[in-house]
Amino acid sequence: MISVFVFLLLAAAAPASGRFTPDWTSLDARPLPSWFDEAKVGVFVHWGVFSVPGFDSEWFWWHWQGQRPPDPKCASYMSENYPPGFGYSDFAPRFHARFFDPEEWADIFEASGAKYVVLTAKHHEGFTNWESPNSWNWNSVDTGPKRDLVGDLGEAVRNRSLHYGLYNSLYEWFHPLYLSDKKNGFKTQEFVSLKVLPELYNLVVRYRPEVIWSDGDWEAPDTYWNSTQFLAWLYNDSPVKDTVVTNDRWGAGCACKHGGYYNCQDKYTPGQLPSHKWEKCTSVDTLSWGYRRNMRLKELMDLPAIIQDLVGTVALDGNYLLNVGPTADGTIPTVFEERLRGVGAWLQINGEAIFASKPWRVQTENGTVPVWYTSKGGAVYAVLTAKPPETILQLQAPKTSAATKVTLLGSPSALPWSPLHPNGGLTVLLPELPRTPAQAWTLKLEAVQ
Amino acid sequence: MISVFVFLLLAAAAPASGRFTPDWTSLDARPLPSWFDEAKVGVFVHWGVFSVPGFDSEWFWWHWQGQRPPDPKCASYMSENYPPGFGYSDFAPRFHARFFDPEEWADIFEASGAKYVVLTAKHHEGFTNWESPNSWNWNSVDTGPKRDLVGDLGEAVRNRSLHYGLYNSLYEWFHPLYLSDKKNGFKTQEFVSLKVLPELYNLVVRYRPEVIWSDGDWEAPDTYWNSTQFLAWLYNDSPVKDTVVTNDRWGAGCACKHGGYYNCQDKYTPGQLPSHKWEKCTSVDTLSWGYRRNMRLKELMDLPAIIQDLVGTVALDGNYLLNVGPTADGTIPTVFEERLRGVGAWLQINGEAIFASKPWRVQTENGTVPVWYTSKGGAVYAVLTAKPPETILQLQAPKTSAATKVTLLGSPSALPWSPLHPNGGLTVLLPELPRTPAQAWTLKLEAVQ
Amino acid sequence: MISVFVFLLLAAAAPASGRFTPDWTSLDARPLPSWFDEAKVGVFVHWGVFSVPGFDSEWFWWHWQGQRPPDPKCASYMSENYPPGFGYSDFAPRFHARFFDPEEWADIFEASGAKYVVLTAKHHEGFTNWESPNSWNWNSVDTGPKRDLVGDLGEAVRNRSLHYGLYNSLYEWFHPLYLSDKKNGFKTQEFVSLKVLPELYNLVVRYRPEVIWSDGDWEAPDTYWNSTQFLAWLYNDSPVKDTVVTNDRWGAGCACKHGGYYNCQDKYTPGQLPSHKWEKCTSVDTLSWGYRRNMRLKELMDLPAIIQDLVGTVALDGNYLLNVGPTADGTIPTVFEERLRGVGAWLQINGEAIFASKPWRVQTENGTVPVWYTSKGGAVYAVLTAKPPETILQLQAPKTSAATKVTLLGSPSALPWSPLHPNGGLTVLLPELPRTPAQAWTLKLEAVQ
Amino acid sequence: MISVFVFLLLAAAAPASGRFTPDWTSLDARPLPSWFDEAKVGVFVHWGVFSVPGFDSEWFWWHWQGQRPPDPKCASYMSENYPPGFGYSDFAPRFHARFFDPEEWADIFEASGAKYVVLTAKHHEGFTNWESPNSWNWNSVDTGPKRDLVGDLGEAVRNRSLHYGLYNSLYEWFHPLYLSDKKNGFKTQEFVSLKVLPELYNLVVRYRPEVIWSDGDWEAPDTYWNSTQFLAWLYNDSPVKDTVVTNDRWGAGCACKHGGYYNCQDKYTPGQLPSHKWEKCTSVDTLSWGYRRNMRLKELMDLPAIIQDLVGTVALDGNYLLNVGPTADGTIPTVFEERLRGVGAWLQINGEAIFASKPWRVQTENGTVPVWYTSKGGAVYAVLTAKPPETILQLQAPKTSAATKVTLLGSPSALPWSPLHPNGGLTVLLPELPRTPAQAWTLKLEAVQ
Repeated sequence: MISVFVFLLLAAAAPASGRFTPDWTSLDARPLPSWFDEAKVGVFVHWGVFSVPGFDSEWFWWHWQGQRPPDPKCASYMSENYPPGFGYSDFAPRFHARFFDPEEWADIFEASGAKYVVLTAKHHEGFTNWESPNSWNWNSVDTGPKRDLVGDLGEAVRNRSLHYGLYNSLYEWFHPLYLSDKKNGFKTQEFVSLKVLPELYNLVVRYRPEVIWSDGDWEAPDTYWNSTQFLAWLYNDSPVKDTVVTNDRWGAGCACKHGGYYNCQDKYTPGQLPSHKWEKCTSVDTLSWGYRRNMRLKELMDLPAIIQDLVGTVALDGNYLLNVGPTADGTIPTVFEERLRGVGAWLQINGEAIFASKPWRVQTENGTVPVWYTSKGGAVYAVLTAKPPETILQLQAPKTSAATKVTLLGSPSALPWSPLHPNGGLTVLLPELPRTPAQAWTLKLEAVQ
Repeated sequence: MISVFVFLLLAAAAPASGRFTPDWTSLDARPLPSWFDEAKVGVFVHWGVFSVPGFDSEWFWWHWQGQRPPDPKCASYMSENYPPGFGYSDFAPRFHARFFDPEEWADIFEASGAKYVVLTAKHHEGFTNWESPNSWNWNSVDTGPKRDLVGDLGEAVRNRSLHYGLYNSLYEWFHPLYLSDKKNGFKTQEFVSLKVLPELYNLVVRYRPEVIWSDGDWEAPDTYWNSTQFLAWLYNDSPVKDTVVTNDRWGAGCACKHGGYYNCQDKYTPGQLPSHKWEKCTSVDTLSWGYRRNMRLKELMDLPAIIQDLVGTVALDGNYLLNVGPTADGTIPTVFEERLRGVGAWLQINGEAIFASKPWRVQTENGTVPVWYTSKGGAVYAVLTAKPPETILQLQAPKTSAATKVTLLGSPSALPWSPLHPNGGLTVLLPELPRTPAQAWTLKLEAVQ
Repeated sequence: MISVFVFLLLAAAAPASGRFTPDWTSLDARPLPSWFDEAKVGVFVHWGVFSVPGFDSEWFWWHWQGQRPPDPKCASYMSENYPPGFGYSDFAPRFHARFFDPEEWADIFEASGAKYVVLTAKHHEGFTNWESPNSWNWNSVDTGPKRDLVGDLGEAVRNRSLHYGLYNSLYEWFHPLYLSDKKNGFKTQEFVSLKVLPELYNLVVRYRPEVIWSDGDWEAPDTYWNSTQFLAWLYNDSPVKDTVVTNDRWGAGCACKHGGYYNCQDKYTPGQLPSHKWEKCTSVDTLSWGYRRNMRLKELMDLPAIIQDLVGTVALDGNYLLNVGPTADGTIPTVFEERLRGVGAWLQINGEAIFASKPWRVQTENGTVPVWYTSKGGAVYAVLTAKPPETILQLQAPKTSAATKVTLLGSPSALPWSPLHPNGGLTVLLPELPRTPAQAWTLKLEAVQ
Repeated sequence: MISVFVFLLLAAAAPASGRFTPDWTSLDARPLPSWFDEAKVGVFVHWGVFSVPGFDSEWFWWHWQGQRPPDPKCASYMSENYPPGFGYSDFAPRFHARFFDPEEWADIFEASGAKYVVLTAKHHEGFTNWESPNSWNWNSVDTGPKRDLVGDLGEAVRNRSLHYGLYNSLYEWFHPLYLSDKKNGFKTQEFVSLKVLPELYNLVVRYRPEVIWSDGDWEAPDTYWNSTQFLAWLYNDSPVKDTVVTNDRWGAGCACKHGGYYNCQDKYTPGQLPSHKWEKCTSVDTLSWGYRRNMRLKELMDLPAIIQDLVGTVALDGNYLLNVGPTADGTIPTVFEERLRGVGAWLQINGEAIFASKPWRVQTENGTVPVWYTSKGGAVYAVLTAKPPETILQLQAPKTSAATKVTLLGSPSALPWSPLHPNGGLTVLLPELPRTPAQAWTLKLEAVQ
């Protein structure tokens, strides 16, 4: 292991020619590697010690022992089911992952149509899903799975030509060095130099992730986290300098402002087309990112809701990162598998409107049913996210010409259409729409403006 | 507790007038209480210590330690995940059932449209889901849940006006008294007198089940199990004598021949209309009745398959008992909840063709799509279990008259139809069929023969 | 297994000639097999599920969940260390006995000088240390050790020519059938016929114990337990009919009155020579018979106290049964090993005064130090249980003659002595007494009266 | 927390005037604080996660998973009792310490006569018995006891006016940073700067130990450990600079050569009077320092052996540090308590010859029994570690005068004596020696040379 101090030194000493400097002006100017925008759809995976209690959410530890007063449900859950003195770290040996089959996971992710997968390498609990030398006995190789989860999943994901990203929480709720720095008003950086940076460096060098999905930044400024130094190294000298993308969680005030693409806040949806590439992350389980053993059906997104959300996100230039929480046993709950395969089945037919698409002049219109537009090459795609009540559908925005051709994705024959207004719009005669549990269909419009 | 010996004596001494005698001729002649045939749809619940390993199936123990040679997957699972010497009984304390909410279960069962629920009071493992005095420290009150599962679920189920039945295995793979009787060629009955009969008696008196779903009978004759004496008591003197129904698993050779309704064998489907009331039991998880932690989506019945199976069963005069396996935590896996609610949504519209229906003159025909017939009052119901490729549907069997009226269940308006042949059949003009994930629709035919 | 009902029938049908009848007059008249009185010293072993909590005592379960109100220490111990709902049966899988080496135990017992060993085959908790068919999943083969503790220890003990006895509790605090019989005022005998008698029969036939150390009898009369029938079978027809001895705990009112030898009550010591053979059972740990993980040195008998107690018991015609409680791991705590080896070292020299001895005319006298007398053949033994302050010792009771010879056991040379009074007594000139941690020495007096 | 870097800077920058410099010449010249030599007897306590398996020794982890090939007993123990994949860290949650009562421990230590107590703050396994911020989730507050063991015991020990010392292992067998430094030939010091030094500093500032019992130094030179810098800080600026003592394990080659007092190697005993103050550490359990659940009596030192060892050590100017291994439950095994109280009882009478004594001109002689000499003030003490066979004892070394007076410690009256040779020696007439399980007695000789 090269010393983190050496690495920082190198980063700081980097010559300026054609290189990024450790400041936001320089870093923010880096163009986003193109694969990301083209990918559009990703799968997010929250997995960690929190999957063992599988209760409340991946924030269980904080709700139980961090916040004041504690969440009464979490407190009761512990007092009713565990002996006094049972601590969060006592859950770790029960993180068995005994059915974890990365090939099976990767098959499901591939079947979902997603082009990238982002795994929580380390969540706010601080437990690392790889053998971090800076997290001895609090990582998945020393404890619990006894396995390199980050590495094993990465290999399977890449074998299917999917991109692989890693989520990393900067802060750790209960790390004593973090708490000590925090107490010092973030004027000391023990935690950053002994834990955060060595681990980020280790992650990048060892696993070459193409996304670094940073989180947990908000309590301290980016200067505490040494974010710009790290990113300068990442973009200048790391083994993934040409392909890696990152998000915008690199310190208080960075969200929606600095970094790579923007997440802004969890499940954020802009009202109109943003000027900067963004990604919406959301979760099948509307109440949690991590697995909950007691989730109920009504708390989950159904397939139509997911497709609507995905389509609306892509139409507004976003990527869609859909989360599932595997169990401590290492399985993806069957209901999540069903959702992911459902997304994939829909994309099998409608993916042409999604992957590598660009926002169109108009992103949405609401007639008898909601319609979202995307474009690619010369074509415009109108995705209907509900079944029209009539067989006649009116679209207002496209401007037709004599050459205009309308087809339904998945169906070979051209559809009859006629102009709607002198200055635009058209009326399409729909065929019987094929059954799809996703409840969304795509019209491809060629030679329209 | 009244002694089992006293009870047997009473049973044996019963006067014959208007009463059943302990022989099959008398017992088989008992008319089945009418609620059962009208109910048509039930939910089967396999829950026990086997839910803890949640591996292989509810037969895990036998596959691991009973059969010779053992199932290699089960043997490996144990050797790879547990210390040498870990025994099946060591799973019991982990049967926590900590999220078990009988009200929530009963809500789901009610939402499925089922009219009865059958819980495994005791499976072949011998663990009783109630506090059996004859199964000390091997029951759900002394160990694991520390709770009367049979009683608690029963109360919730009955509060929703569902009928409540109990599954009971006569044999227990590893009970030393059973093994001893077996070794003696079933010439001794220690196990029956010390365990089976006291427990059956206790179950009936304490929980008043309306179904006794007997199982595990096949290794010994009914005379070993004292089945006819028990049934005579059940029908003559028990608190449920007027409403209880039983199946046909009361000793080797009884299946499809003696008892109440017939199950014949698991998942049995007759080729034509049977002459005796029967019930098909089957499971959403095609590989197991008990919960499997590693089940995958492709191993589960999807909703269309379930509805087809249900409809075909009812058309052939059967009841349909659909199984789900709850987790050791006490939850019904969300994917099972989805299936059950899906069945309920379909029955909401199509239940008129199912509940309290009778088989029709013709039970099925296969034109462009499979059609199953049922009847009730003057109406005949034709259930299509696939979407017809055309909007014109031909039915061969019904004989129409001028008064014949055809409607689609769930839709108010009468459908245009015309006679097909001089001696019968009709052609119906279908409307656009409403979307349903179940993929099945019912035509109601009035004034046909 | 022969049915217990058959066995009772046989017992009842036994012809009277030269046989015991099932009544106390007949049974009490049976002479005690001679080995028992000659043996004098035994080791008692309390081992069971109670060894797992190893807290309070072997009565832990009762103190925690039986008595009202519960013992606050036991209740706190559970609430502070275990989750709510943790039950006593959950301790059983932790009864690992992983270091249990019966050869090592038997070596220690042999080294103690004891001539018999009595193991708790079943204590009041009902857990059987052998594979009782009537205690399925609540015995040491199905659960915990996964081993036949009764059989394995028995073999090792007998290989060293020690006699082997089994402790058996008639009642079981929480057995549902017992509680039911008790509720019925002991007018029903479900528990006795389904549990107690089959197990006693099984124990005797399978392990051929030479002591049946009965206990837990006091809540019900001997007629409830069917004690006289059992004993008649034991003395007439069992495989140990010629050598077995039993104690006096066979029903309320039996103690000190009926049965074989008398225990009267635990740790009972008579004030003077009793007329019936008896045995004092006592425990190195003065607060418990079962292992306590938190025992402290001051709560244990030290070696001098044990030797005093042993000598006093034998002098009054008793046998001395000294208890040790092994751990759940299967080891004999080293401090108990030290005590037992200490007893053995003392008996190595002084055993001549103990084994096969008879009470003497006078059993004790208290001069400058306590003196206990025993006798054997022509010799009288005076055991001093403290070091005399002077080298001159006076004994009052012996009547000397010219032939009288006094020696110190362990020392070859005769000691000088002189008559004390005209009608008896003598003064002995003691040598320097050899060091012994037991602090007791024996003078052998020959040719005295 | 003050940064360790700041602290090192301070240490390095210390002005030289009257201060120690970070080199052995300066550090070795520091006089040992006087309390240590006067104390003579200490209790050593090995307690950690290794107490949970309680098998083999505190080196269990290394013997199982470190050395090649593994110790077959350790490997079998794991494979026979734990599931595959069970790791050493999985033992930590079972380190319950639930009966740990520091007051009770301190009472026993005080009763032993010891003047100081040394606890393993951290053994080679790296688990810290205090809440080290550099050992998150691998310390006794986050895991297992959930308690500050170092602090709690320290308070109780000091309340009894005993000195408190802490054992600290420099190396950690499996710490990834240590392994990385080692792989680099100890040219990197990640482990030292991120783990060793911050923890040593934290220990000293927080608990103010009066002994730092360093260990685990031997694989790397003192320059790797930064030992001299640390010791300079310890002696110059730490809160215990005036009273602290350390031993000689500060890097390869330091033992018996540099540091404070010398341990040389474990259980080291010099053949003659050393020129440098030393300490012998040894353990009641001759096979282990940590608790072994399966220890047997014959593997333990008995009291006479301990006293002989102690006396011989003190006579040769050593301190005697006697080790006991508490259980994972937090109790001191009763047999160890017995030994410690036995030492205390002997010291109660003979401590005058031990505490604050100095070696005498002659340290030992071997006549009919072994004799060890100590001296204090004008008196010379001759400790006999066996009972002389005769009442006449000859001592060769002392030179008597007319004023010479001989007494037996614990006995008021002067003993008759006579000169032996013209140039020295004396013959003493011994009284009857009082009984003591320690088998050692002290003659005090006044006015001899």
